[in-house]
Amino acid sequence: MMKKITIAIDAMGGDNAPDKTIEGVKLFCDKYKNKDDFILNIFGKEEIIQEKIIKYRVKSNLINIINTEGIVSNEESPLTAIKNSKNTSMWKCINDQINGTSDISLSAGNTGVLLVISRMILKMIDQVSKPALAGLWPNEKGMNVVLDLGANIECNDQNLVDFAELGSALFKSLFPKEKPKVSLLNIGSEEIKGTEILKTASSRLKKLSDNDNFIYEGFIEGNEIMSGTSNVIVTDGFTGNVALKTAEGTAKFITKYLKKSLTENFISKISIIFSYFSLKKFKERLDPRKYNGAIFLGLNGPVVKSHGGTDSTGFYHSIDLCYKIVKGNLMTQIKSNLDHSKSG
Amino acid sequence: MMKKITIAIDAMGGDNAPDKTIEGVKLFCDKYKNKDDFILNIFGKEEIIQEKIIKYRVKSNLINIINTEGIVSNEESPLTAIKNSKNTSMWKCINDQINGTSDISLSAGNTGVLLVISRMILKMIDQVSKPALAGLWPNEKGMNVVLDLGANIECNDQNLVDFAELGSALFKSLFPKEKPKVSLLNIGSEEIKGTEILKTASSRLKKLSDNDNFIYEGFIEGNEIMSGTSNVIVTDGFTGNVALKTAEGTAKFITKYLKKSLTENFISKISIIFSYFSLKKFKERLDPRKYNGAIFLGLNGPVVKSHGGTDSTGFYHSIDLCYKIVKGNLMTQIKSNLDHSKSG
Repeated sequence: MMKKITIAIDAMGGDNAPDKTIEGVKLFCDKYKNKDDFILNIFGKEEIIQEKIIKYRVKSNLINIINTEGIVSNEESPLTAIKNSKNTSMWKCINDQINGTSDISLSAGNTGVLLVISRMILKMIDQVSKPALAGLWPNEKGMNVVLDLGANIECNDQNLVDFAELGSALFKSLFPKEKPKVSLLNIGSEEIKGTEILKTASSRLKKLSDNDNFIYEGFIEGNEIMSGTSNVIVTDGFTGNVALKTAEGTAKFITKYLKKSLTENFISKISIIFSYFSLKKFKERLDPRKYNGAIFLGLNGPVVKSHGGTDSTGFYHSIDLCYKIVKGNLMTQIKSNLDHSKSG
Repeated sequence: MMKKITIAIDAMGGDNAPDKTIEGVKLFCDKYKNKDDFILNIFGKEEIIQEKIIKYRVKSNLINIINTEGIVSNEESPLTAIKNSKNTSMWKCINDQINGTSDISLSAGNTGVLLVISRMILKMIDQVSKPALAGLWPNEKGMNVVLDLGANIECNDQNLVDFAELGSALFKSLFPKEKPKVSLLNIGSEEIKGTEILKTASSRLKKLSDNDNFIYEGFIEGNEIMSGTSNVIVTDGFTGNVALKTAEGTAKFITKYLKKSLTENFISKISIIFSYFSLKKFKERLDPRKYNGAIFLGLNGPVVKSHGGTDSTGFYHSIDLCYKIVKGNLMTQIKSNLDHSKSG
């Protein structure tokens, strides 16, 4: 019998927990009802979770509920979390990987605390200089992995090289048929552009570029993130966070204005009847819930952070992401990439 | 008689010069045909410019053509430009401010060379630590000024404070009825977020905040650039450039996908008939040509850089921007802001 994919879920994290998290579990179990290759270990107040499981009619027999008393609040500081959080659903959810029970942990709770306690419990992979937060981002040809999205506000060239190895391993685990094409985010594509750190990282990545692990494509500018020329985009956490949020803000601005334009008068309202299905597909493609889930890479076990304000569909997508990451053997891919990097 | 607003234009810079630059001049003269408060000093090969002026039927008698032999090529390096460019249309266009003839200079040519020779000819204002490239960016309530967009890849807190003074002076000259609300771009709005440089700049700006020059609003994240909560957004040139280009790329991705959705089948094509005028207005609002022109601030005279690949409409908008900047007394606003900063 093959070992089942075991996902540890913090049911109590996020703005709408545990309603939205358990409803997300329900959507996941429905979607995968013909599969029995997974187990969900759900951490939280057992009584409340049982109640929600009945409310949302979660039918799966592939669920374990593990009772935990504490909840990490949004106000908890990363500095005091190590002392204060040991009895929480978040802590136990991460710790489930150490017991060997789970392959991956998922939480929609306090980001700062999640990063700190994940790092403390799972510890960094020996060969990695810094862990990074990676995200999925749509592009014209499919999907990008972008990292770091905010775990490290300042990075040196070694960090960026590590991010390239971690990011391409993630890409390979999620999209096994495609080749990871790595680029460094810069303010020009010429070799002379950017900081000394970027120039050094670029020349090191050029030497590591090969057909097995990743192809290094050089520098790209912000307008090429979504063009599909690369699919693993590496940057420091400050720039990555600003780029991600700027893209979100721009998308929101445009769709809001489009909606306003299409409903401002009677004639334009008629157009919606005719374009309903096309606009629906358009909206679906850009739906941020589909890209919900940032992956914390570089530790001895993967941790996925769901957006705190997401709904059940968003949370479903982050459970799905966990499933795919484990199925794609992320940790083996990372090990293979790091071996390649150190021998390069 | 009031002194006329005199704009020095490099007619030979940009991908489509001098056709698009002269056609842009034509659009400007047509738009302002009832005004006689401006003069355009046009620099370039006189013979060719005369030919284009006839071709595009530029009627204005408010134009001077100044013959120049050389053209700065796109391949010219900023390092050798000072030696090589003295007989070019770009050099003479900037230098026209030193002769006291022009109030502002405009070019669509090689950005790196433009920044270097502008700085060399016009020199930095004594009280400014570094000059910056500022741009206009639409937001939900109107327009933002964002700087630096790429002149300085690394900045200290003094540079950021100077950018706040320069940016709010620019905002006041363009939108005299609104109050400049300054924010620093960061990866969180809490005071503990970001680099030490950002934290120091923030506490200095807090002390300078007042009702006359600008109100300091604290940190904002990338998704708030277009929300309209602030209208002067300050960041280092690396982050600003990545944010600007990411926003451009996102807008392009969305509108391309929208267009595809609305034309993919017969039914959705019908919708375009009903939404034609609404979509046209939508497209117009987002038209990047309307925001064409980055303003180089911090020198003893303003220089506007038009996008190299723009068309005549884009170039018209950058001439219009020059006109408004001078009419709004940018240099006086900058002087007043810097006096306030140094006494603060």
